[in-house]
Amino acid sequence: MKKLAIGIDIGGTNAAFGLVDKNGIIVFRDSVPTNSHRPADELAEKIVAKINKWIETSASQYVISAIGVGAPNSNYYNGCIENPPNLHWKKVHLPKLFAPHYDVPVFVTNDANAAALGELKFGAAKGMKNFIEITLGTGLGSGLIINGDMVYGHDGHAGELGHVLAVPGGRLCGCGRNGCLETYASATGIVTTVRELLASGEYSSTLASINPQELTAKIVSDAAGQGDALALEAFRFTADILGRCMADAVAYLSPQAIIFFGGLALAGELLFKDLRHYFESYVMDHYKGKIQLLPSALLTGEAAVTGAAALAWHELETN
Amino acid sequence: MKKLAIGIDIGGTNAAFGLVDKNGIIVFRDSVPTNSHRPADELAEKIVAKINKWIETSASQYVISAIGVGAPNSNYYNGCIENPPNLHWKKVHLPKLFAPHYDVPVFVTNDANAAALGELKFGAAKGMKNFIEITLGTGLGSGLIINGDMVYGHDGHAGELGHVLAVPGGRLCGCGRNGCLETYASATGIVTTVRELLASGEYSSTLASINPQELTAKIVSDAAGQGDALALEAFRFTADILGRCMADAVAYLSPQAIIFFGGLALAGELLFKDLRHYFESYVMDHYKGKIQLLPSALLTGEAAVTGAAALAWHELETN
Repeated sequence: MKKLAIGIDIGGTNAAFGLVDKNGIIVFRDSVPTNSHRPADELAEKIVAKINKWIETSASQYVISAIGVGAPNSNYYNGCIENPPNLHWKKVHLPKLFAPHYDVPVFVTNDANAAALGELKFGAAKGMKNFIEITLGTGLGSGLIINGDMVYGHDGHAGELGHVLAVPGGRLCGCGRNGCLETYASATGIVTTVRELLASGEYSSTLASINPQELTAKIVSDAAGQGDALALEAFRFTADILGRCMADAVAYLSPQAIIFFGGLALAGELLFKDLRHYFESYVMDHYKGKIQLLPSALLTGEAAVTGAAALAWHELETN
Repeated sequence: MKKLAIGIDIGGTNAAFGLVDKNGIIVFRDSVPTNSHRPADELAEKIVAKINKWIETSASQYVISAIGVGAPNSNYYNGCIENPPNLHWKKVHLPKLFAPHYDVPVFVTNDANAAALGELKFGAAKGMKNFIEITLGTGLGSGLIINGDMVYGHDGHAGELGHVLAVPGGRLCGCGRNGCLETYASATGIVTTVRELLASGEYSSTLASINPQELTAKIVSDAAGQGDALALEAFRFTADILGRCMADAVAYLSPQAIIFFGGLALAGELLFKDLRHYFESYVMDHYKGKIQLLPSALLTGEAAVTGAAALAWHELETN
């Protein structure tokens, strides 16, 4: 009987899930609409039905060892997701949801922590004991691994590096405060930077011909790749703020590496070249040249599911 | 046979040491000149001679279980102090230093980490699993306790919150960079702030009659206690920057408490009232009113020795 973990990523529209072995190989994956207008039990039932059907028809013999769930506003300590944004549920206790179906432990955390655990078990951080995972998407998420374990903190919400006050009095953040790192260093942030640069009139740019509401990080990234001065300045500006905050992160945690996952990280050297430059200029002397800034080794399309499964495997192996 | 840990705090002028039981009670304490012009072995021999003499003449029977040392530029992982500031040694391996005298484990860390462990074992953080210790002295030191254990990071130097870049491009720090938190929030920092405020000419102050080179944090604190507007403004300014950086610290680590030790923390409500105000104004909504900002419960004169001993007890109990 081969042991598998179920990894589930609950998003606003769809819930992706898969069966993942302890090496991070997905042997089966699928997705269903989250449909959070309906009770969460129905989502669990749909996922379980798909998984059980596949297991029954599979030639090999499998056993489910644990379930890991990545979900917004989720709390590792109590197993709940509470008032999740983009979902209509108020409070859902994940272990109760799956208890009628599988007699296995159920673990839950947010997507950035799941990415960090995926990186630890299956990605660029294999063998590392101390590193920081940064997810650059619509916002900036992070997961902190210290002494080989995930940092949840006292209330379960540790590792919110998107909400360090990078620019006091700066851009208004979704959290209600001003100047949070994620208002600058994220897909949304770089688009805002481009809009500001366009408004300043200091640069001529191919991006000026695009409706500002239709700008995306991908469009900015493509323009920068073609040498557009304004787009390059937007990357430089982003890297300056992100590099400075990562120097702070090193003063906090002395990590072996900082690993970047997600859309903006896919810009590759467009981001990393400037980022390394600013990071090295800001970081304390005794760290210069010693901290690895790395792109994630997780596959974009698989990371949410393998990360959630990594949480399950990590818990089984360490507790 | 009662078990004791030796706690040693190696300073630039003197080395304080004591025998500390597992409840943090110092049963014997003394100090000797550090005299770092001479080899470090001589310091160890002097300390050991004093301790052994006391044990021999004591009515009770004691056994030494471990040695904890707090020292600048020390590394928990390799047991060494390396190029310590204010000391003439280059590299000293503490376990080797004491091996000829006691067959017990020897642990070493910096003074802020030792203070954090002292707080955890014997002070205001008893029973806490996640908290931050901030030492406000000449500089700003810190120790991070996560999941009940000390954070050393990959290279042993984690927890340098004095060197987060609080004010980009701000005051020149001893580390060679600009704007580090400790250039503002420390005894040195608040004195600099007073000098800047005096130079601005915006405040009339009793402090104007003091030679700027003779200003100390204690003098500023006393003036603020007597209602001096400039001194109060210096505390407000300090609390604003420190409160903002502590809000960032909470976004990182989600601690149960942040505990403040050292000279400036002794100013009590002069500091804490403004600090709580700014911290609460900067911290993320879901933490408001939930994080304790506390003064240390360690005795100023004892904390260095009990903290070093706490390191030894913590290691014996957790490893």
